Amino acid sequence: MSLLVVGTVALDTVKTPFGEVEEVLGGSATYFSVAASYFTEVHLVTVIGEDFPAEYIRLLQRHHIDLKGLQREKGKTFRWKGQYDYDLNEAHTLDTQLNVLQTFKPQIPEEYRKIEYVFLANIDPDLQRDVLHQIERPKLVACDTMNFWIAGKPEALKRTLREVDILIINDAETRQLAQEPNIVKAARKILSWGPHTLIIKRGEYGVLMFKKNGGVEEWENGRREERENSPSSTSTSLFPNSSVFAAPAYPLESVFDPTGAGDSFAGGFMGYLSKVDRIDEASIRQAIIFGSTIASFNVEDFSLKRLDRLSEEEIITRFREFKTLVDFEHIG
Amino acid sequence: MSLLVVGTVALDTVKTPFGEVEEVLGGSATYFSVAASYFTEVHLVTVIGEDFPAEYIRLLQRHHIDLKGLQREKGKTFRWKGQYDYDLNEAHTLDTQLNVLQTFKPQIPEEYRKIEYVFLANIDPDLQRDVLHQIERPKLVACDTMNFWIAGKPEALKRTLREVDILIINDAETRQLAQEPNIVKAARKILSWGPHTLIIKRGEYGVLMFKKNGGVEEWENGRREERENSPSSTSTSLFPNSSVFAAPAYPLESVFDPTGAGDSFAGGFMGYLSKVDRIDEASIRQAIIFGSTIASFNVEDFSLKRLDRLSEEEIITRFREFKTLVDFEHIG
Repeated sequence: MSLLVVGTVALDTVKTPFGEVEEVLGGSATYFSVAASYFTEVHLVTVIGEDFPAEYIRLLQRHHIDLKGLQREKGKTFRWKGQYDYDLNEAHTLDTQLNVLQTFKPQIPEEYRKIEYVFLANIDPDLQRDVLHQIERPKLVACDTMNFWIAGKPEALKRTLREVDILIINDAETRQLAQEPNIVKAARKILSWGPHTLIIKRGEYGVLMFKKNGGVEEWENGRREERENSPSSTSTSLFPNSSVFAAPAYPLESVFDPTGAGDSFAGGFMGYLSKVDRIDEASIRQAIIFGSTIASFNVEDFSLKRLDRLSEEEIITRFREFKTLVDFEHIG
Repeated sequence: MSLLVVGTVALDTVKTPFGEVEEVLGGSATYFSVAASYFTEVHLVTVIGEDFPAEYIRLLQRHHIDLKGLQREKGKTFRWKGQYDYDLNEAHTLDTQLNVLQTFKPQIPEEYRKIEYVFLANIDPDLQRDVLHQIERPKLVACDTMNFWIAGKPEALKRTLREVDILIINDAETRQLAQEPNIVKAARKILSWGPHTLIIKRGEYGVLMFKKNGGVEEWENGRREERENSPSSTSTSLFPNSSVFAAPAYPLESVFDPTGAGDSFAGGFMGYLSKVDRIDEASIRQAIIFGSTIASFNVEDFSLKRLDRLSEEEIITRFREFKTLVDFEHIG
């Protein structure tokens, strides 16, 4: 199946303890698209300015990314400038120049309106919802967001979540969105707002997935039963009518630049689901491992340098290493 | 097989966002012993003062912990006072009164000298080594330590590590000990100092194990080969002649008090290895899951309250839940 992504393309200036780059290719939709291109046909809707380098267009084309939805507007391309310290877990934004992004209104080409796999990268939640209203109901909609929208437009974001199947955010965003420090309680709360699955990105600690099974009503009944049957809710099976999956990050000896890790995770994840055209739990778990695989390559170099030259063999080998990484023998 | 532990017994005063307790049973060897008692016969060597409550002796006896090595000295029992904030990841020590611990010299009873499984809980590295010199070479020696010894007695600690098979510490201690921010590089460095296995405790993010396979020489050759054969070391299999295992923490809806999580992890871990009397990698991986299982129960209540009333069925059920938590289907 094919996959639609709506998000940003940027020119990034990034400094890490290991080097720095200026005005290189970046942006959530860029990382997502190239990551997903290893699995499926990607259709990109985004905006660039008149100054966007031709070589970066060629990079996207090299990965067979369909650019019919690429809007080139008068003005300059969106720019982001950031820095990472030694712990590499947190990006410190030094400068943001929205430029053409300021007036971006995604226009979904007519031929994309029946696309069944859709990813709404981190943009204004009102624009995310507007995209969904331009297309028919897809088989699967996933979205990302960030602290800026959680703090600034919480109601708009919640309206968007009602129309989304999978929310992919980091752990700080999870706690902030739910206003709850415990991650399990936070996940339950967010799942009650619409998405059937929440995927929490935890950087070097991997990914945690919470998924409600059955219909919402069944799930709510399960929660009630659990509360009623257990004096101490801690000693029963934790997750009636829901599933939890924990995936580690691939332990890397050299993390060069974490920029785009989350977006390339989402790209590998959605790319794989779109490829196999299944959204059962087994496939979602595999997709999380493929997402983690692609993200682990991405951070090995600046910009999209590493993603640009991945091989299928490297991807498969690392997927298998993930299996070895977490495997243990069952008992009796 | 039976298991020897040398470490501290304490009276703890602990405050968490969910409540507080005063002068309750604590100490590294206490948590370790009760945790391990669900798997094997435990022999405890430690020191208490004249004021140590009889009810806590009875608690240890209830778990069939052999107290021949319990030294009761003139003076007061070791006391620790700490506090946790909402994130629960870090203990803030408010007060430490060493009392009888100040002059503690572990005396290993004659009949323990052939014990094959030994855990040296967090005490002065010189005392840890002194314990090893009082006994015959066991089949397996594991130890813990802390920032206080890493900073204060690094050379003594390194001498101890040369005689230890498995080091079990947390991630901050790993980085501090190796003086290296990258956890993979830090692990390699520490393994070159003696232990064949390093187990890194990461609190709510679970556990990471690094183990060198084959003899030390084989392992060093593997590292050399890896460096020579790959211009970019990042694209080959990460761990020639060594293994890495990642286990998540059990996602808990209510963490009450993290005190003793690390020690009860070690207790479950060593208890299981001693029970099965195998130290191959498959058993070590299972032992890590049992350790994580016991630790996840321990944090559900203050002091040893939860560990005191565990059932075998609860342990087995949670072990199985760990399998479900990390499982995904292999590809092709």
